[in-house]
Amino acid sequence: MNTRKTTNLPRNTDLTAIKRTLFAAAHAASAITLPAFRSGLNVDNKEDTHFDPVTEADQTAELIIRKTIEENFPDHTIVGEEHENKITSSPFSWIIDPIDGTRSFISGVPMWGTLIGVAYEGITFAGIMVQPFTGETYLGMPGISTFQRHTNKAQTISTSGIETLSEARLFTTTPALFEGEMAQTYAELESKIRLPRYGCYCYAYCLMAAGHADLVVETALKIYDIAALIPIVRNAGGIITNFQGNDPDDSGNIIAAATPQLHAGALAIMGKN
Amino acid sequence: MNTRKTTNLPRNTDLTAIKRTLFAAAHAASAITLPAFRSGLNVDNKEDTHFDPVTEADQTAELIIRKTIEENFPDHTIVGEEHENKITSSPFSWIIDPIDGTRSFISGVPMWGTLIGVAYEGITFAGIMVQPFTGETYLGMPGISTFQRHTNKAQTISTSGIETLSEARLFTTTPALFEGEMAQTYAELESKIRLPRYGCYCYAYCLMAAGHADLVVETALKIYDIAALIPIVRNAGGIITNFQGNDPDDSGNIIAAATPQLHAGALAIMGKN
Repeated sequence: MNTRKTTNLPRNTDLTAIKRTLFAAAHAASAITLPAFRSGLNVDNKEDTHFDPVTEADQTAELIIRKTIEENFPDHTIVGEEHENKITSSPFSWIIDPIDGTRSFISGVPMWGTLIGVAYEGITFAGIMVQPFTGETYLGMPGISTFQRHTNKAQTISTSGIETLSEARLFTTTPALFEGEMAQTYAELESKIRLPRYGCYCYAYCLMAAGHADLVVETALKIYDIAALIPIVRNAGGIITNFQGNDPDDSGNIIAAATPQLHAGALAIMGKN
Repeated sequence: MNTRKTTNLPRNTDLTAIKRTLFAAAHAASAITLPAFRSGLNVDNKEDTHFDPVTEADQTAELIIRKTIEENFPDHTIVGEEHENKITSSPFSWIIDPIDGTRSFISGVPMWGTLIGVAYEGITFAGIMVQPFTGETYLGMPGISTFQRHTNKAQTISTSGIETLSEARLFTTTPALFEGEMAQTYAELESKIRLPRYGCYCYAYCLMAAGHADLVVETALKIYDIAALIPIVRNAGGIITNFQGNDPDDSGNIIAAATPQLHAGALAIMGKN
């Protein structure tokens, strides 16, 4: 089991420029997303079978994020939820979800965020989550995760010390995520934890990274749903893997936990799938 | 069916003083609740069988609210979640829930609020919800409901025009609220609506009143969970009753909807219980 895969990030990587670009891009997106939030805008459906809303704000915000990245790192790969990927020969890639939590977004609930992750050779090492309505920014960089409200000073964050399921505050999107046999294992997990909370999307991982909650379990995430969150969770001391206990960089079913012990407890149940 | 029970509120009722007291009391509570939010404070259990956290902040905030009410209306009845009721011979009563949504509160999620309602002869005619982390105030007074962010100018709010279940954004605390036969009727309702959202407590009713969502269905609410929200919903144009279609002032199972048509659609299903 490899719960903290490390990159062989080159020593001369300009982390300051990467951090500055994460901030600039994510906050530029807020100028599009925030005015659209609670504005009663129209919603399209991506698929016929599932409700998966995409707003014009979502698509426009991604273009602004891409522009900011391209101005700073013109040769890097860019992967986004809303537009075609830009594949280059660079080992660096930026992974964008302009509005993660669109179901929150379209029902007036501020539990959504703009996500941007940065990977080297496919392994994410930096990421940002911005929630513009509440004015919150969560950032993960090598060795440190931080929380910032509005333009206040950023504070270092770390996960809670919770080690047992019976004390754990658990987040998931909805119990309905888990189908078939997985519904039974999820029900077993929920019966053992202290408190379940639903529908917080990226915000859940950030609350867990900051020590306010303890466990996140979700299924069928895409790379843009999770790339930005991996560095935020790991550099705050948390563990994040798939249901096999492996690195989640290629997306899938996710367990994120405050401590190795809590992660092992959740993995012992959800890993049956 | 009586969906908009009216009070015979005396003409000389000082609504300005009541509104001023609602604001002063709810915002005084924020000075206690907000510093405690995300502070890692301890949590007690009210009951052995259910997880029902009460924090010191909850209890202290109610005392501050009571003090503010007593300074302005010394002879009025006061009913609170956390302390003994003060019963007087006045036809006016104030109903307090210092922190509605304690499960949100203890997991770092800002979907909780301070609730204060005012009733005349047992019928609520004014109410306030304050969410101090996001800086939101929702107020219902005879003939008008308003939304205010921080100290910005208050805006009149009104419910959405959604009339059909298939278009409705539904809030409930959790599907697990509904047990036995009610679980089946709730599942039927959820299968017919556009989008379910869980765990927003008082915030859900306010989002519905402001037109961002369309329907709220919950069970086993207490009077202090709902008294403040009735005037906010009704004076924004919404309908709020129990599962029998009657006035919810005595608490119970609640349906709140943006339009009479949507309310009737939800009542036709949940009213089977």
